[in-house]
Amino acid sequence: MNIVNNLFNIKYPIVQGGMVWCSGWKLASAVSNAGGLGLIGAGSMRPSVLEEHIKKCKKATSKPFGVNLPLLYSQIDKHLEIILREKVKIIFTSAGNPMLYTNIFKKNNITVVHVVSSKKFAVKAFEAGVDAIVAEGFEAGGHNGVNETTTMCLIPEISESINIPVIAAGGIASGKSMLAALSLGANGVQIGSRFAVCKESSSHKLYKNYVFDSKEGDTQLTLKELTPVRLLRNEFFYKIQKAYQDKVSVNDLKEILAKGRAKKGIFEGDLINGELEIGQVSSMISKEQTAKQIIDEIINEFNKQKLLIKSIKLNK
Amino acid sequence: MNIVNNLFNIKYPIVQGGMVWCSGWKLASAVSNAGGLGLIGAGSMRPSVLEEHIKKCKKATSKPFGVNLPLLYSQIDKHLEIILREKVKIIFTSAGNPMLYTNIFKKNNITVVHVVSSKKFAVKAFEAGVDAIVAEGFEAGGHNGVNETTTMCLIPEISESINIPVIAAGGIASGKSMLAALSLGANGVQIGSRFAVCKESSSHKLYKNYVFDSKEGDTQLTLKELTPVRLLRNEFFYKIQKAYQDKVSVNDLKEILAKGRAKKGIFEGDLINGELEIGQVSSMISKEQTAKQIIDEIINEFNKQKLLIKSIKLNK
Repeated sequence: MNIVNNLFNIKYPIVQGGMVWCSGWKLASAVSNAGGLGLIGAGSMRPSVLEEHIKKCKKATSKPFGVNLPLLYSQIDKHLEIILREKVKIIFTSAGNPMLYTNIFKKNNITVVHVVSSKKFAVKAFEAGVDAIVAEGFEAGGHNGVNETTTMCLIPEISESINIPVIAAGGIASGKSMLAALSLGANGVQIGSRFAVCKESSSHKLYKNYVFDSKEGDTQLTLKELTPVRLLRNEFFYKIQKAYQDKVSVNDLKEILAKGRAKKGIFEGDLINGELEIGQVSSMISKEQTAKQIIDEIINEFNKQKLLIKSIKLNK
Repeated sequence: MNIVNNLFNIKYPIVQGGMVWCSGWKLASAVSNAGGLGLIGAGSMRPSVLEEHIKKCKKATSKPFGVNLPLLYSQIDKHLEIILREKVKIIFTSAGNPMLYTNIFKKNNITVVHVVSSKKFAVKAFEAGVDAIVAEGFEAGGHNGVNETTTMCLIPEISESINIPVIAAGGIASGKSMLAALSLGANGVQIGSRFAVCKESSSHKLYKNYVFDSKEGDTQLTLKELTPVRLLRNEFFYKIQKAYQDKVSVNDLKEILAKGRAKKGIFEGDLINGELEIGQVSSMISKEQTAKQIIDEIINEFNKQKLLIKSIKLNK
């Protein structure tokens, strides 16, 4: 079985998801130094900030790292310019049409990975010429697809439809779930939530603690009329639910969402008015660890679980 | 790693989910004869019909089989009487409080398994003294939990919380997904959708074909205000969606749902007015096979995939 190590020239097939307000140079370089692939999340960065983070990341690690670039970002051309000028070698694109930029990246010898949440878009990304895709299930935190297909169903579906590497995302935070993802046919995993609350994440302490305290069932996919997003329930979340009960219009919903809600919640630690994006798997994350501790723990658990699985004799 | 073979005295740790209008004596005995655990789904059977199916199942197989019993069923006491009189040895209970009947079953030396979709109810079932639980994720077909936790997140959460066997359900229809489920910590799997459309299922030919033609994204969880149910989209489904758009009351929704919708869709093959319950994994099921062909294929794929996983060396 092929894993994505060679594609990115990394030690372990673990990608740290690019996440708004969490994944700057500190997190990306820590993950890369620990043997995974760190990604700077450009989605919450103005172009000058992205440039600064790329420069700092280069200084902090000699290992490969990448940038996650939401294609719908308003200043995408400036982001693009910086990425090419700084000679970033790995780009993960999301939220947009992979036909638009994949050629430009490929001409510049950049490895391109596109994030999708359905088979239809996986095939489109494959046809656009990307090197790999991230297939992200319904359980993932933050923005999410409309099909609501879970990781368990999405990975076999996609990996049997295209012949480029598939990186599984959504619900993966441990060695067990990493083994499950590879069993389903994935060639690597992308982990978001667990890194979102690790030591090197730039998320706020109060947000981290709220995640550590969360239980099974505490996140919910909402705002499906705008763009579906998975959140932990808090006062802001209940405000949205109240708006649904009051049957407000999509425009009113937009007004409630307003701007900067994710920054408020994740970066500033406003647990009341902020949008607290995180995956379902947050219920299994209970303490702050370094990126290295997380990766080492996942690899150890993976190897241990692999031995257990090896010992199974199906026939009675 | 322990699998559930000894608990049920079966060859493979594969349970066929009890499903309305699909799983009578023919399907249950075929699965049991093929080495899995077949279940008669009592949810769509009047007491006299259940009695007939149990008697026929005994004649059709000498292997262990069980009955799936929804605890909210209106004539539950009559079902119970028949189960005890017919000396059924394995009961899967669902949709109700496991405290109510577990003692009665245990006193009669019946193995009791309860179906849950959240950690909270798994712990309750454990405390009620059941022998195992089925943990069913959001991707599963038919009736579903309110937490929307997916199989990938639910299995580790529950298997680390209680020390009785956990049978994973939701999104499992292949050797790969079975391997994934055991990797997550499950001790066996329950498969619904694939058996719902197999040769021995009593579902209608037109329903089966509709499932075989379905694609990724074609099912949706709806009717969350009554009891969440996963369906394939059809005219009945769009009628529900229209009702939501028109912001009708819960009572009006109940009227639209009315009675017998599942029977209409699944048993009578009314693709227009029927409720077409099935799991997300339906998109991966494309032909009618016998229960034995399905089990043999799953076991072969499981063993093949296990070898591939064994060959993975994580370090570059």
